[in-house]
Amino acid sequence: MIEKSWRLLASRSLSEHRIFTLHADRYRLEPEGRESDFFKLDAPDWINVIPLTPDGNVVMVRQFRHGIREVTLEIPGGMVDPGEDPQAAAARELEEETGYVAARVRQLGWVWPNPAIQTNRCYTFLAEDVVPDGKLAHDPYERIEVVLRPLSEVASLIQQGEIRHALVVAAFAHLWTSEKAAGNTGGNSSS
Amino acid sequence: MIEKSWRLLASRSLSEHRIFTLHADRYRLEPEGRESDFFKLDAPDWINVIPLTPDGNVVMVRQFRHGIREVTLEIPGGMVDPGEDPQAAAARELEEETGYVAARVRQLGWVWPNPAIQTNRCYTFLAEDVVPDGKLAHDPYERIEVVLRPLSEVASLIQQGEIRHALVVAAFAHLWTSEKAAGNTGGNSSS
Repeated sequence: MIEKSWRLLASRSLSEHRIFTLHADRYRLEPEGRESDFFKLDAPDWINVIPLTPDGNVVMVRQFRHGIREVTLEIPGGMVDPGEDPQAAAARELEEETGYVAARVRQLGWVWPNPAIQTNRCYTFLAEDVVPDGKLAHDPYERIEVVLRPLSEVASLIQQGEIRHALVVAAFAHLWTSEKAAGNTGGNSSS
Repeated sequence: MIEKSWRLLASRSLSEHRIFTLHADRYRLEPEGRESDFFKLDAPDWINVIPLTPDGNVVMVRQFRHGIREVTLEIPGGMVDPGEDPQAAAARELEEETGYVAARVRQLGWVWPNPAIQTNRCYTFLAEDVVPDGKLAHDPYERIEVVLRPLSEVASLIQQGEIRHALVVAAFAHLWTSEKAAGNTGGNSSS
């Protein structure tokens, strides 16, 4: 068993950085007995949401991303607040970032954003029949532009590199695999 | 233009952690004039690779992931070495982690693993007609089990939660969208 090879010796918090805390976990690898620190980011769980309008568009957001210092095309998303249900977080972030509200929100799945160096999950939701009847509420450091893109073009947007955020690509993969499980044959058809 | 709202004031390195360096970038948001630090991880580019055997299996790896303290089912992957071509890194990691070598390796696309808090890219490759004729070369802290899974079952493995690494899910999304662009209709068919 691979699990049994790794013996956790100690875990310590190194520094806090608003949206994540840096930790060092010390492990001994058996049977060799080698020891090393493994660094990881502890963060709240995240959510993202694919908002579909009645006419088959995805409500997307453009925003500046400070890691890459560029503007990206993404779906709405954010952090789950302490004690908040992930589905409630999805509905909240959708409305806050885009002003859209959904008739129905359901979970499509969840991923580990990076199981090697992060502790948290990212839950993906589908929001159906969304309409712009809600109230925008941007964070002090959010500057977001809302854009609509046909769901039928999302595979092309990924292929052409217009959509490059791994968690957004993974979200659409969950949509496509859930459609496949439901019996649709197309890889990216609107249901 | 959203880009023009963000003025980079300073960038400083905070700490080094073997596989990434922690940085703080200070921005002023215009026109409000608010200032804040944005934290990010600077890391080498990453690669992952979907290795396909002649009979339609994907060569996958099981390994303990220290962020989540669990064993995951993934495709081979790793860091691009300094000066290394990403495609060469894919062929190298495939052989080192699994012992398989490929007749052909081609790039399917690339993603930002996390454009909000990381600077790096992850390139995805397809390795075709792989055979176990290479030489395993695990890192001192790698403990990897190789398992084969039919490509035709990958969508189900994602749907059922057997595959949860976001970059692995995104890799298969690239395979499916590239197949779609090539004219196949199935969402996850083997080509």
